[in-house]
Formats: sequence, C-alpha cells, structure tokens
Amino acid sequence: MALLAVDRDRIAAAARRVMARCDELARVSATSGAIERVYLSPEHARVNRLAAEWMREVGMATRQDAAGNQLGRIDPSTSSGTDGGDAPALLLGSHLDTVPDAGRFDGIVGVLIALEVARLLRAPGDGPARAGLPFALEVIAFSDEEGTRFGKALLGSSAVAGTWDDEWWTLTDADGTSLREAFLEFGLDPARVGEAARRPAELVGYLEAHIEQGPQLDRRGESLAVVSSIASARRFQLTVEGEARHAGGTPYDMRRDALLGASEAALAVESICRAEHHIIGTVGQLEAFPGAVNVVPGEARLSLDLRGEFDGERDRVWLSIERELDAIMGRRGLRWRAQEVHSAPAVFCAPLLQDVVREGILSTLPGGAGDPAVLFSPAGHDGMAIGAITDVGMLFLRNPDGISHHPDEAVSAGDVARGIQALAEAVLQLAADR
Amino acid sequence: MALLAVDRDRIAAAARRVMARCDELARVSATSGAIERVYLSPEHARVNRLAAEWMREVGMATRQDAAGNQLGRIDPSTSSGTDGGDAPALLLGSHLDTVPDAGRFDGIVGVLIALEVARLLRAPGDGPARAGLPFALEVIAFSDEEGTRFGKALLGSSAVAGTWDDEWWTLTDADGTSLREAFLEFGLDPARVGEAARRPAELVGYLEAHIEQGPQLDRRGESLAVVSSIASARRFQLTVEGEARHAGGTPYDMRRDALLGASEAALAVESICRAEHHIIGTVGQLEAFPGAVNVVPGEARLSLDLRGEFDGERDRVWLSIERELDAIMGRRGLRWRAQEVHSAPAVFCAPLLQDVVREGILSTLPGGAGDPAVLFSPAGHDGMAIGAITDVGMLFLRNPDGISHHPDEAVSAGDVARGIQALAEAVLQLAADR
Repeated sequence: MALLAVDRDRIAAAARRVMARCDELARVSATSGAIERVYLSPEHARVNRLAAEWMREVGMATRQDAAGNQLGRIDPSTSSGTDGGDAPALLLGSHLDTVPDAGRFDGIVGVLIALEVARLLRAPGDGPARAGLPFALEVIAFSDEEGTRFGKALLGSSAVAGTWDDEWWTLTDADGTSLREAFLEFGLDPARVGEAARRPAELVGYLEAHIEQGPQLDRRGESLAVVSSIASARRFQLTVEGEARHAGGTPYDMRRDALLGASEAALAVESICRAEHHIIGTVGQLEAFPGAVNVVPGEARLSLDLRGEFDGERDRVWLSIERELDAIMGRRGLRWRAQEVHSAPAVFCAPLLQDVVREGILSTLPGGAGDPAVLFSPAGHDGMAIGAITDVGMLFLRNPDGISHHPDEAVSAGDVARGIQALAEAVLQLAADR
Repeated sequence: MALLAVDRDRIAAAARRVMARCDELARVSATSGAIERVYLSPEHARVNRLAAEWMREVGMATRQDAAGNQLGRIDPSTSSGTDGGDAPALLLGSHLDTVPDAGRFDGIVGVLIALEVARLLRAPGDGPARAGLPFALEVIAFSDEEGTRFGKALLGSSAVAGTWDDEWWTLTDADGTSLREAFLEFGLDPARVGEAARRPAELVGYLEAHIEQGPQLDRRGESLAVVSSIASARRFQLTVEGEARHAGGTPYDMRRDALLGASEAALAVESICRAEHHIIGTVGQLEAFPGAVNVVPGEARLSLDLRGEFDGERDRVWLSIERELDAIMGRRGLRWRAQEVHSAPAVFCAPLLQDVVREGILSTLPGGAGDPAVLFSPAGHDGMAIGAITDVGMLFLRNPDGISHHPDEAVSAGDVARGIQALAEAVLQLAADR
C-alpha cells in the first residue's frame, strides 16, 4: 500500500524544477557550447555552491566534505523532542561531474530528484525543518564519478567509503597537475581526506536515481526500473607488437603488421561478446605506431572495456578473448600483452532496497500493472564504491533511445515526476519497515 | 666494355667513407637515440652545411637553392679551353631528410655515393676541378623526399622540377607552423621558390642510387639492380562515421561502431591486395574518436597507401576496395568517405639510362655473369618529381632482409663499393654515348 500522500500538482512542479535546474547546471561548463565539468575545477566549486543553496532552500544543513562532495542533511524529528543530530542517515544522491561533451542528466538528475524527495518528505512547519522519518535524510552530490580529469573513476564516493588510496595523489590530469595539487588549488587539505569517510553505523543505506544509459526501458515502453546490480567490470590496455617496415617495399609475406592484428582483435572482442548474454566488450581506443601513412605499423595499442552481470561470466569471456588473441597474433607473427588497469566486482543491490524501490515504482503505476522491470546496470555508478560501507539501492529512469555521455542524452519531465514519486515512496516504505 | 679504370683500393676507401658519413649524418637528429631529420629544421641546415663541405672537398662549387636543396657542381673541362659553366648537367643524387625513427641509409647513401662518383670522375690536377666529361656533373641533396613534416612528399624535388604548388604554403606541421613560416624561419624567401626550378635544356638526366627498401635483391643473392620504374601510387584519408555511445549501456544491435568498421576496412585492404600481383595496400594510421575507454567510437580515421607497377592495376584495385567498403559500412550502418591526398602515376626510367645503369652493374660482375636484376620500385623517389623535366635512371643496392624506414635498415660496405663503381661506370657510358 502506497504511503506517500500524492499531490500531483506538487510533484509536477518538482519535476519542472528538476528539468530547469538540469538546464541551469548545464551552463556551468569549462567549454562553451558543450558540457564539461571535472573534479576540483572552478565549475565543480560553482555547482557545489548552487547545490548547497538548493539544499538550504529545503531546510537542510549543508557542508562540503574533505573530498569536495556536497552534502545536505535533515535530522529526524524525534518523538522524545531530543535532537536527532546523531541519528543514522539514509543517503540519497548521485554525482554532479561529467564526461567531456556530456549530456545534462547523467548523475545530475539523481541529485536533483533527491532534493525534491527531501522537500516532499520534510516535516511541514517544523523549523529548522526535520524529516518525519525514523532516520536522518542526507542528499549527497558526489564530486567525481566519471574519472574524466584524473583517469580514475569514483574518487568522490571512494573518499566517502573510506577506500581512498594514497597512490592516487600522484595521478595527473592532461595539464600535468597532480591530484594533490588540484586538492590544494581547490582549497582542500590532502592530509584530511580521511575525514570524508563515513562509518557503516552512521548510515541506513544509499539510494540513487539515475538515467538508464541504455535502451531497455525505452524498448519496453516503461518509465522506471529496479536495478538489481551494478556491472562487474575489467579494463585492459592491450599492446600488439610487430615490426615497422617500409610500406612500399615490404611484401605481404614479410609483414608483421601490428595494426592488422589489433583490427582482428577488436573484431574478435565483438564476435565473442555478441555470442554471450549480458556481456559487453568495447574497444574505445586504438592507435597505430609509428602512425605514418607509408610505414607498416610496428605497434598498436587498444583499450578493452569488459562488463558483465556476474564476475565469473566476465572472467570466462576474458579467457576466451585471451585464447583468440593468442591465435590471431600467432598466425600473424605478432606478440601481444595486456595490462589490467581497472577491475571491479559486481555490486548487488540490497534485497530490502530493491523491494522498497519496487514498491516505489508500483505506486506510480495504475492498479493491475505488472511488476516493474528489473535491470542490471552495465554502466558504473557511485554505489560501486558506497557498497563497501552500506546497502545500495538504485532506480533507473527511462533514457530515450539509450543515448548517454552525449549532448543528445535525454529524460522526460513525466518520467522525472514518476521518479520523484517512486523514490519518495521508497523512502517511506523503508521508514515503515524500521 | 668497361670504361672506368678500376682502382679497387680507391673504391674500397670511398665505400668506407660513405659508411662513416652515414654514421656521422645519423647523429644529426631532432631526437636523441633515434634518427629524425625533417624539412626546414635545424638538422636540415646542419646536414646541408656538412654536404656542402664534402662537395667542396671534391672540388665542387656549391649552393643551396631556393627550396633548401643542397647542390654541388663540377663544370666540364672543354677541349676549346672555354668555360663550361653553362653546359648541361647530369644530376646525381638523392635526399637527406628522413622519416621519424629512421634508418641511416635511405636517401643518404645515394647522396654520398654520388659524391664519391664525382670524386672518381673529376679530371685530376685541374684546379678548380673539372670533370673530364662532355657535361657538367652536379650532386644534388634533396631537402624533402619523405614528406614527414608537412605530410606532402617530394617538396624538394618538386621545387627543382618547377611543379611547386602555391596551395602547399598553408600546409602545417604538427606544431601548427605553416610551410610558409618554416621557409622564413629557415632563412628562405617563399616568393623566390620558383628560382629552384631547372629548365629541361639545362639537364642531361638524373641518376640516383638508393637502397632497395625491399627484399628482392637479398632473396636473389645479388648486390645491385636496374630500376625499371617507380611505382604508381595513390593515398587516401578515409573517415568512417557511426555514433558515439556509452560503452556499458548500448547493446550490440544498437551500436554503429566506427572503429569496428575501420578494422574491417583495414583487413579488407589486406585481403584484396594480397590476391593481386605487384599491388601493395597499407593502412599505416588508424585512430578512433572520441577515443575514450568507455565510449563506443563514433568516428574512425585511417590512411590508405596504395602502390602498383601500373596505374590501371592500381585504380582497378581501388575500385574493388571501394566496393568492399560500401558493403562493410552498409552492413554496420556506418557512413564512410575518402579524401585522395596524393596521386602519382608510375614513372618509367628512360631506356638509355636503364642501359647505362645495366652496363654499370655488369662492370662489377665477373665475366659470364647473367643479366642483372631489373626491379620496379614500389617505394617513391625524387625521380617521380624530376621525371617531369628530364630523363630518370635508378640503381638499387641490396637492402638486407628488406628493412627500411626503421633503425635496423642496412646496406653492406661491399655493396656500396659496387654501387659506386656501377654508378661511375654508368656516367662514363652515358658520356661515351654523347
């Protein structure tokens, strides 16, 4: 049974506000005519100030943590009248950073939906505002999910999860600025990054709304989905070595062309992964060296991004790819090697949080509608890091045509309204459960 | 009948000098530990000064022409005792510029062999030295054959041929410096480039010694070959367009992955050309855009270098490639386009110059040896440009294992000695023929 007292006009107004704020945040960009907002940049500082202002508007106490994440908190109204300031908190949020030439919704819409849920659920007429809930409500805007600037994703949420690695301080951006220097320039103290970490006992769980970044909901004609898990992922940099030779004078039987080996490798990844269910392999980078028009390439480098619902499947497919690459390179007299640059196990959403998200979605559907879609997320999310300290639940919003990481990325105001209602209902269901 | 009075010790000393000077020039490089010497660079100026010094050492009058080519000239001793300063000249030479990470012989060894031929053939005791020949002898060190810096090959020899195109002035190097700016920085006047052009009446012909840049002589166990023609060539920049999408969320059936189309294209070029006799196609450059590890490539760019012995064969193969690319891209929902960036018809060596080169090679072989090898050159050479104003002849030197455009590029001192002898004999045969 739905617990949220639905005021359609109020939810529609909230959705309009979310859409308008997505537009407003899109204008905070390092590049004019495109959206790019990276960790510890002036644009990061500007969107944190905007988010803090909007958090205060719904009665939240705000702070920027030691890793540049922006937080707002509403303490619970306690029946005893005592202060709920140390009550465990349910975190609602997502991230405000972007890829280069980004869309305006990835991450951002989740933060803004969380803010509207906080607005809907705060106890009315109680100033400073308090939530009529048995736990505190925090909205968190993570500072780095995409990893655009330093090539390492989930920096903001890793700080909150207490899994920050001191080796990251020497990572550099394209201009040679180290993560350490960027912290100082932003006004953060690298020595204090540990203070961003939260203890499991402080937290009830983490709930995130996000656009799907894929076409499944659009194809099903549905607005919202329960997320079952976040993909298991591995990333490799592959190097193929042959021999650079003069393009004119070297007959085919003497060539050891690294680029042709790499081309076969990219096609093999496609054919192996296509034959699998729920495994996606992508070669996003490929370059030939020396890269001269009249020289047979002696070396080629390519990236491989491999994702799957389950770690075991993903690893089995990688073994198949390895075997196929051995065969290709053997035939061509090439050598190859792989450097693993990223590995993340699948993160499963907590059954209880999947249940309350399902209840939330059901509350937006007409009576007699079937069960909502349950999807796993091939894309990574902050929950992958946060899963280390608390339960994670996620709600996907329909992403027309599945276009993401691209200026054409979209979500409809109607689906945002349903997302706000579903997430608010999920929070109330969770509250009722405690 | 051989005309050169062979002094084996003198020729062996000349070959040792050539080898030592190849080493000396190899140290004039923009990159330490590798050889890279591009047009209008400080290294170009330095090797021109060295070449001029060596030209003066054999009694030549030297000048750097309006396009940065370095020349040395010995006028003929005339029987009438009048000055031979306006006699037509036989040009001997090659180029001193290199590809990146080059070997030390491509082009260079041809300039140094020409210098030794001038030394062997100058009239002794006649100062300023004069050749005992019915024509002037010029050694020319072309300034740009490879096209490494501005992506356009044969700039030096095109200036000499009078086929300079004013559209080239806006070509830029990797740092954004235009060809016009580079001229000024080097101390050359762009407005005067036309002064480098030679008139056909000034020239007897052009003879060039060059390493083979292929394995044919090595496979036959022979030192020298007559070159019959220089390959017909076309170069294209191919662009494949698909759609950039999120790597995680985009199922295979929605992908229009430009890199996979480009990979199939590179493999198609290989399989089509392998099936042909004397046609070589090479994809030396391939890059994916946006080039992010987690984005399906929306665009890929690749180069295609196509060479053949005859223009018609080459064009027929390009039509086959076009048809195959249409099929590949059609299947994958991709668009593609080709921009032709270079086209050169086959240049046939003049029958008379092929004859004198054959006589030259025969003079190095024991009596009763069969005819020397006759090869066509799949690699381009300065003769492709110079053929527009005078007859061209070429002599190939064995290139062990056919490795060129690579630090392992080699030629033996013995083959260089035979090359010097053969080229000197060819010049004498040509002189006797007039």
